[in-house]
Amino acid sequence: MSTKITNKEQVEAFLESYDTFLFDCDGVLWSGTHLLPHVVETIELLRSRGKRLIFVTNNSTKSRKAYTGKFAKFGITVSENEIFGSAYSSAVYLSKVLNFPKDKKVLVVGEKGIEEELESVGINYIGGTDPAYNVEATDASLASLARDESIGAVLCGLDLHLNYYKISKALLQIQDPNCHFLATNIDSTFPSAGRLLPGAGTIVGTLITSSGRTPVALGKPSDEMMNCVKEAYHLDPSKTCMVGDRLNTDMKFGEKGGLGTFMVLTGVDKEETILGTNPLVTPKFYADRLGLLYELLQNN
Amino acid sequence: MSTKITNKEQVEAFLESYDTFLFDCDGVLWSGTHLLPHVVETIELLRSRGKRLIFVTNNSTKSRKAYTGKFAKFGITVSENEIFGSAYSSAVYLSKVLNFPKDKKVLVVGEKGIEEELESVGINYIGGTDPAYNVEATDASLASLARDESIGAVLCGLDLHLNYYKISKALLQIQDPNCHFLATNIDSTFPSAGRLLPGAGTIVGTLITSSGRTPVALGKPSDEMMNCVKEAYHLDPSKTCMVGDRLNTDMKFGEKGGLGTFMVLTGVDKEETILGTNPLVTPKFYADRLGLLYELLQNN
Repeated sequence: MSTKITNKEQVEAFLESYDTFLFDCDGVLWSGTHLLPHVVETIELLRSRGKRLIFVTNNSTKSRKAYTGKFAKFGITVSENEIFGSAYSSAVYLSKVLNFPKDKKVLVVGEKGIEEELESVGINYIGGTDPAYNVEATDASLASLARDESIGAVLCGLDLHLNYYKISKALLQIQDPNCHFLATNIDSTFPSAGRLLPGAGTIVGTLITSSGRTPVALGKPSDEMMNCVKEAYHLDPSKTCMVGDRLNTDMKFGEKGGLGTFMVLTGVDKEETILGTNPLVTPKFYADRLGLLYELLQNN
Repeated sequence: MSTKITNKEQVEAFLESYDTFLFDCDGVLWSGTHLLPHVVETIELLRSRGKRLIFVTNNSTKSRKAYTGKFAKFGITVSENEIFGSAYSSAVYLSKVLNFPKDKKVLVVGEKGIEEELESVGINYIGGTDPAYNVEATDASLASLARDESIGAVLCGLDLHLNYYKISKALLQIQDPNCHFLATNIDSTFPSAGRLLPGAGTIVGTLITSSGRTPVALGKPSDEMMNCVKEAYHLDPSKTCMVGDRLNTDMKFGEKGGLGTFMVLTGVDKEETILGTNPLVTPKFYADRLGLLYELLQNN
């Protein structure tokens, strides 16, 4: 049974329960290019109470550093180490879990965010935004493709510069079972200006379909991402709450990780979904919007 | 139990049983750019016995007309109406089964073969090889995307010029349940120069993943393609044999359609697959290669 937060006492009790808050961003803090009401004030409130904040995003197109710029545009001040993106989580996984060899390279199907995070942990890569991979698929260019033994992993995320040549190259690599196959995340869509556009899962799906392999996914709601977050911040799950707008990613991610869960209704899922029969996950708390935490405390 | 054809008497009995032969092409007649032995002689043999020949291909990148050129390069003479490709099958389905309205357009994600076959049945289309759709996905180009109510169907096949913009456009259209969603075929890979490259199913898969919808597939082994072939040639299934190299497409296609089945071992599947426990389909006949029909009849 979820508790809907509608009064000041409930806010106080909720804030008492946790010392760390993990935030999903889009649909919670902002919706597309539009800041949601009283988000800045709520973040300040949490900071003033000494809470630790971590912003978790499946968006792999931006590095943590670049993502601070996005927060700044909305008037929210965050530091790079308060951000945990799926590109960074992938870099951490390669570096810490796989001990990815220094003499091997990662073939990137994705954007600059992935490249920058691989650089931040000292992992070699090819592909990505390199113009040499943004070529037309012709009989000649496809004929020239050959498996490169120096590639030890394919890492795939959202790639707005997707092309057939790049996918073919990545497929040839992962046809070798010794080549790791990783996905920053597998969201099928993402919201953009009120529409749903193809997400990273769509791009990763091309490689799943053609190879028959399943990648290790490093975004929400994967256990691997949760392990990376816990490791990086030494979290106490019982004192940590996941805040998000989607049952099947954010809330599932929090629940599987043993965290508290708080869902806001400003994004994908609606109240009916929580209250319906057999919801995928039952969030511990929910509210109409994040800003309500601030608003309710203003009332006397 | 499959009959392996290894002698002259078996060839005669096999030829007696059927008056029409449906052929898969790659792996049966040729392998990539390499003509298989005694294929030309076997085709001549069948013609001299008055057999009707139909060449069925899931390759949607070429129209029937363009495909005759491919046969000619191998020294095989076929007429356009002996070829039945998945692009044509899709055009027939739109025209005959859906009675696709004259005032609506099909959005094509695919190559010239699809465009030419739609033209051949008088169906309007946009997308495809039009340079206006081969644009970079940028914030501006994606923001300009809007659902076009004049598009009544999305038809997706192998597209070597796949890009994120085109996929986003197609996704916005099929998010409307009233828009038909068709695939020329859903092969996950296709053989090219000894390697497996991403097939039409990989491209179609981007739309399946992002939309959650399942397309009507018009290639082998779909019932829709079989119905189109039967309709177009007025086939008597009991006197027709499907010849192919794959259990999961060709042989399944023939069996489901109530046709005889003949598998050759010059392509994807091997003898072990037929003889193994629980094969997907048991072909009625099989042989090491198609040319053996001719070769065995030369022996006295």
